[in-house]
Amino acid sequence: MTHVFDEAIAVRRGDDGVFRATTHPAYSNMVGPFGGITAATVVHALTRHPEVLGAPLALTLNYAAPIADGDWELHAEPVRTNRTNQHWVFRIEQNGTTVSTGTAVFGIHRATWGDTEVSPPVVPPADEVAAVDFPEFIAWARNYDKRFVVGGLTGEKSDDSTSTLWIRDHPERPLDYPALTSITDNFYPRVFLRHGTYMPAGTVSLTTYFHATPEDLAAHGTAHLLAVARAARFAGGHYDQDGRVWSMPDDGEPVLLASTHQLVYFKDPQG
Amino acid sequence: MTHVFDEAIAVRRGDDGVFRATTHPAYSNMVGPFGGITAATVVHALTRHPEVLGAPLALTLNYAAPIADGDWELHAEPVRTNRTNQHWVFRIEQNGTTVSTGTAVFGIHRATWGDTEVSPPVVPPADEVAAVDFPEFIAWARNYDKRFVVGGLTGEKSDDSTSTLWIRDHPERPLDYPALTSITDNFYPRVFLRHGTYMPAGTVSLTTYFHATPEDLAAHGTAHLLAVARAARFAGGHYDQDGRVWSMPDDGEPVLLASTHQLVYFKDPQG
Repeated sequence: MTHVFDEAIAVRRGDDGVFRATTHPAYSNMVGPFGGITAATVVHALTRHPEVLGAPLALTLNYAAPIADGDWELHAEPVRTNRTNQHWVFRIEQNGTTVSTGTAVFGIHRATWGDTEVSPPVVPPADEVAAVDFPEFIAWARNYDKRFVVGGLTGEKSDDSTSTLWIRDHPERPLDYPALTSITDNFYPRVFLRHGTYMPAGTVSLTTYFHATPEDLAAHGTAHLLAVARAARFAGGHYDQDGRVWSMPDDGEPVLLASTHQLVYFKDPQG
Repeated sequence: MTHVFDEAIAVRRGDDGVFRATTHPAYSNMVGPFGGITAATVVHALTRHPEVLGAPLALTLNYAAPIADGDWELHAEPVRTNRTNQHWVFRIEQNGTTVSTGTAVFGIHRATWGDTEVSPPVVPPADEVAAVDFPEFIAWARNYDKRFVVGGLTGEKSDDSTSTLWIRDHPERPLDYPALTSITDNFYPRVFLRHGTYMPAGTVSLTTYFHATPEDLAAHGTAHLLAVARAARFAGGHYDQDGRVWSMPDDGEPVLLASTHQLVYFKDPQG
């Protein structure tokens, strides 16, 4: 049986080299598709490109215009392939109009010295935290098992925009690059948390750096990921947000799988 | 008298819409130009484009190949202009080859609620910290007055990749978007600090989010900026780094002008 996530990120590459995808109702958001599923579909398409080198290292996706429900095209070009990395430019089109732009870097993980300087917050294990549902109109969230340690979507105001949650696909699905990509965009808008209410808000630009090797993903399997995000500054109708996604093995050190950043548009509720 | 920074970021827009720039020896790095001056030149060019909307909000620049000393072309296209923001795609070419790719978002700062959740480190004032020089072969650094509070380029090993420094153009120059852009890339490779030695390293992808309004820049003037950067995870030949650039008025609250992120390539010295 195909997982709904795999249905949603499915792409067909035409003889013209263009990838074609279709929005999936299971991953719709308040307006158009969930940005995470769009990003995941791009990563999925690039990993299937015949000229791809290695695994994703960096992705920037700019949400220039709403994507309408229906078919869309991904025009992607590997503009430069070096010995260990490869630079992509891409755009998403609907009806001849560019609705998203972006770049990606793929590459080879080489054996080098390594260290992780940052730490995940201390949290109770996932099975000791209650799973929560988002409101019905946020369709995409139903495909995730979400367990907030702090910063849930409760309608409470907070002075701190931090959300810390355990998250995984629901139903469970082995972690891969598209799934990880989608989860780097799982954080609902930080202004909702600061104001304790919904307000017009949307990601303008997403940048994710992938540390995870294919071996890290395989080792992670279907377990919950620990995801943390916080805004830095809200000003002039935008804010930026930093996030991290961790694998938390029972019997080993935390593994930082991805760092993720966003610039988000918002409008005051009264504005 | 023209400031050397203005000489370095100078662009000429041809009748074909292509911007032409030339690398400047005062901003050369170990190999090719300093990445910050390239990013600054892109921002400078876009702000002079006849169709530009507002000020820079986000910039992603991917350093796909070394830029050779000499002339280069910037092909930039405003692919989508919304009511309050504008999406750009661009590439840098030399001799018909793409050497950098990128995207930018420009837009209007609207009057909204705001808050800054993060704080700068507590540091002594700039005039109580000694200015340092980098080695002669890092030419671009001579154009900055750099005063490291922690994490200087001293050849000492550190377990923590944090650098905190006061920095401004030398000679002094009023802060504007290109100058701020360049300074978001001022942090020397974090692996040098961890290993206490030079090693092959270079930025693969840079993403900067601009919070600064034109008024913030004017209010800052020519004072030192407080700049902070730290790596999150080193693994597989890459690391990611988060940085912040603050304005620190004598008589007011710190102002977060920009958040900046990088994916950096490195090679073990013995590898």
